[in-house]
Amino acid sequence: MTVRALVFDVFGTVVDWRSGVAREVGRLLGGRVDALEFADDWRGRYGPSMDLVRTGAQPWTPLDGLHRDSLDELLPEHGLDDVDEPTRAELVLAWHRLDPWPDVLPGLTRLHRDHVLAPLSNGNIALMVDLARRSGLPWDAVLGAEVVRHYKPDPAVYDSAPALLGLAPEQVCMVAAHLEDLASARARGLRTAYVHRPGEFGGGRPTPAADPDADWSVPSLVELADALGS
Amino acid sequence: MTVRALVFDVFGTVVDWRSGVAREVGRLLGGRVDALEFADDWRGRYGPSMDLVRTGAQPWTPLDGLHRDSLDELLPEHGLDDVDEPTRAELVLAWHRLDPWPDVLPGLTRLHRDHVLAPLSNGNIALMVDLARRSGLPWDAVLGAEVVRHYKPDPAVYDSAPALLGLAPEQVCMVAAHLEDLASARARGLRTAYVHRPGEFGGGRPTPAADPDADWSVPSLVELADALGS
Repeated sequence: MTVRALVFDVFGTVVDWRSGVAREVGRLLGGRVDALEFADDWRGRYGPSMDLVRTGAQPWTPLDGLHRDSLDELLPEHGLDDVDEPTRAELVLAWHRLDPWPDVLPGLTRLHRDHVLAPLSNGNIALMVDLARRSGLPWDAVLGAEVVRHYKPDPAVYDSAPALLGLAPEQVCMVAAHLEDLASARARGLRTAYVHRPGEFGGGRPTPAADPDADWSVPSLVELADALGS
Repeated sequence: MTVRALVFDVFGTVVDWRSGVAREVGRLLGGRVDALEFADDWRGRYGPSMDLVRTGAQPWTPLDGLHRDSLDELLPEHGLDDVDEPTRAELVLAWHRLDPWPDVLPGLTRLHRDHVLAPLSNGNIALMVDLARRSGLPWDAVLGAEVVRHYKPDPAVYDSAPALLGLAPEQVCMVAAHLEDLASARARGLRTAYVHRPGEFGGGRPTPAADPDADWSVPSLVELADALGS
């Protein structure tokens, strides 16, 4: 069956969260903190914060709320208890102001000609809309965690993509830079494409060059467009 | 407070359902039926079919499914019991192949510069995506009934727009050609804009020139862009 829709992980796969968050942290907190280290620490709380929702320890909370909770824990650890409320609110919006990797716009523009495109991210809808409007990402819809009120890798998130697009699972391809995301998508019958993003962690963590289990492994979305004949 | 997002009724407000459905009925059923009358009859079952879901008599069913149920009732009434399964499935897709009114693309293009735009329709996501891709409607997200599994005028649908866009209700404006849709949106705190679509029912039903209770009443989305300074 032909792939009719591509759904995308966003943080790390579409946008470079690390340099964008560090830029906003530098702007808002000045020289009071190592901005890249702060970005890494903040991102490090991402999985554990979602696990609280996944396990039912915390009721459904959109990602903006989890980012705020993590920030409030993180600031005192960096000796920054005195950061005021407006600055905290503005820091959470750092995640709305991230830039795409250089191949993303040319790749998505080609893929959009003959495929439905949507984010399938753990980010909430307002966050996805802000990222898309900032860079002109050509999404046809915003799917993902907030629509189903479950966080990846819960199966409900992957199942929602074909269901809401009116397609069979094998007509939908999950695109991500993370093996575990793709493995979870495959377990629900989706096709998978791995994009290698060696810069996601600033070189601080090894990233595999390919996913041997994915239908496609590519170094960029332009090569994905080539592979799919877009 | 400034309007930051505009959410749209779609059938009648953005697209001309009557001539589009009649075109597809004519194409698929040939001269066996009066295509405009058939389109009117099909649309006549829209409200009652959603009421079955609203009252709990029927579990959640996306609009494509309700359109199919109505079609299966309607065909025998027009002496067309013999229409085969592939043709019925294709007829349901008539609602995915509707064209916008002539002012829609120029109006939305201007409004999109400084407002978040999304449908807030009873149509399901796949249907909204097909309509948008057909004509290039510049939606930032697809909101509406399927996201919340309630049909308008249930309050949950109107409440979902500001909640999912991260805005206050008064920062969101509902745009529709139907007074009752706007009254329901106002009751939930949204701003409202009435668009006069005298051709929606082919002249067969009077349409008011303005909504005295709306924040804006306009003859087209281009005039709405003028009114909002876009």
